[in-house]
Amino acid sequence: MSDHLGEFGRIRRFFAPLASAAGLGLRDDAAVVPMPRGQSLVVTTDALVAGVHFVGDEPPELVARKALRVNLSDLAAMGAEPLGYTLALALPERIDDAWVASFAYGLMEDQRRFGIDLLGGDSVSTPGPVSITVTALGTVAGSALTRSGAVVGDDVWVSGTIGDGAFGLEVALGRVRWPEDMAKALHERYLLPIPRIGLGRGLIGIASAAMDVSDGLVQDLGHLAAASGVAARVAAAQVPLSAGGVWAHQDDPAWALAKALGGGDDYELLFTVSPDRRSMVNELAGRLDLPVARIGQIEAGDGVIVYDDAGRTVELEQCGFRHS
Amino acid sequence: MSDHLGEFGRIRRFFAPLASAAGLGLRDDAAVVPMPRGQSLVVTTDALVAGVHFVGDEPPELVARKALRVNLSDLAAMGAEPLGYTLALALPERIDDAWVASFAYGLMEDQRRFGIDLLGGDSVSTPGPVSITVTALGTVAGSALTRSGAVVGDDVWVSGTIGDGAFGLEVALGRVRWPEDMAKALHERYLLPIPRIGLGRGLIGIASAAMDVSDGLVQDLGHLAAASGVAARVAAAQVPLSAGGVWAHQDDPAWALAKALGGGDDYELLFTVSPDRRSMVNELAGRLDLPVARIGQIEAGDGVIVYDDAGRTVELEQCGFRHS
Repeated sequence: MSDHLGEFGRIRRFFAPLASAAGLGLRDDAAVVPMPRGQSLVVTTDALVAGVHFVGDEPPELVARKALRVNLSDLAAMGAEPLGYTLALALPERIDDAWVASFAYGLMEDQRRFGIDLLGGDSVSTPGPVSITVTALGTVAGSALTRSGAVVGDDVWVSGTIGDGAFGLEVALGRVRWPEDMAKALHERYLLPIPRIGLGRGLIGIASAAMDVSDGLVQDLGHLAAASGVAARVAAAQVPLSAGGVWAHQDDPAWALAKALGGGDDYELLFTVSPDRRSMVNELAGRLDLPVARIGQIEAGDGVIVYDDAGRTVELEQCGFRHS
Repeated sequence: MSDHLGEFGRIRRFFAPLASAAGLGLRDDAAVVPMPRGQSLVVTTDALVAGVHFVGDEPPELVARKALRVNLSDLAAMGAEPLGYTLALALPERIDDAWVASFAYGLMEDQRRFGIDLLGGDSVSTPGPVSITVTALGTVAGSALTRSGAVVGDDVWVSGTIGDGAFGLEVALGRVRWPEDMAKALHERYLLPIPRIGLGRGLIGIASAAMDVSDGLVQDLGHLAAASGVAARVAAAQVPLSAGGVWAHQDDPAWALAKALGGGDDYELLFTVSPDRRSMVNELAGRLDLPVARIGQIEAGDGVIVYDDAGRTVELEQCGFRHS
């Protein structure tokens, strides 16, 4: 029953080049990685299953890059610098070499982009769907960002635009029609999130708490508030929307708001900062050419309250949001 | 489609205690692990799929421990000290809390035994079988053991007994009947391999090359020889068998030899040492109370040749062994 346990077996040739940059070549039972002195190791793992976390008919190279990037986003949320990753692939029989080649090509693209190497891997056969597990390793000097440092009075910030992951999934599933260019942009955001590595690193020493938006803005902010022992209030009107998001909001405000507040897969950073550091955040964002927006405040108490444009509390359950 | 990506979701309560020892608690997007100064990081990943790598009806706690141990065995093969691990679980709907609780219990048992912590995890639903991916992290001071250092004239050694993983699988599948006590011992060896951490660490500075026996003795020795650019010869009569292995060999020598040489899942260490260090190996083995056996030599050339008791070359294909 043991089928090349611990190595890539027949698909090894596609993955060996991904490890060669570090001189590892996947030849040994494990990879040896020198650690920069005085740095801490940051570790995260995320699994993606076809039909659950991606539709299944996406180009393999994009699936590969998303699997890698959702993990890099977790590193970004800690303020870590990516170092490398391991990959475990469970593949059904029908997956052919062309699929694997495309998948490996996508990884190579993003390895170059983010300056990382494949540190180890395993490939197993499965009677189930394609399943991809990435464990990403990073380093951080000094104190990493965590979810638990938010204090009463802090501003709540997000990077980029929110809701595009959820809107893009609608496009992927063919459920909603945006104008073509907007639909394309949203779909791309869903397929290929952008881990905010530079922002995360820059926020060390500035932000009191941080995490990435993967489960949905309100739910994730709830996690951050709970970890910090505080409450958060958000002004819905301040939540930054992309052009496609604004279009959807004009068409159906309640639906768009529900997607922006409750959808997931944005992989933007959600972070809290003392008000006396607003200029530091804006200066960092300017340097990175990455928009950031102040969307609310940290208060005493617990939970998350969202206010609409008229100052009324948004009933989150009614816009499809389920409390965690 | 995103369902608690990046965290354990509903089964979190079973796994949070596994991370608490390190004070991590799985609260943040990633774990931060201080690295001992001057140590290199060692990383390995292995995935197990129900119906492929385990039968599927084993007690969950044993499945968990095996998933962890096959990774720890890779660390052992590098001479690394285990530090921690990440876990990604893909679970079908039918898996209930009792299964998860038993699985987590098994992990806790082995965390205590090997002095490691859970550093991060993810749980996803799947329409396929249970699938478990572990990435193990370890540390090594100085030079790790690799597969590529064997030189002509070195002895070839193995720890423990060989073939028990393959014999134990036969028991698990009900294919062969050993006397009850032997069957039980073999089954246990299959269910719960013993990573040779202490031996691996002790072999740094002694062994010229090392790896673990996971795919089968001859195939793995072939990998080691290829990585080192040498050939290896093995005396079949010197390959150490357990009581159950000896019993099988008396019953059907060719069958037992094929299993011992070609079976996998032993997770013993296979290593090469200069003849002038034999006493160092024996002294180390004595200190660890772990039997080791010299089974052959490294020669010039390539490939692996096995000789039987009468000095004839064993035709490996005829005993079920497929060349890699």
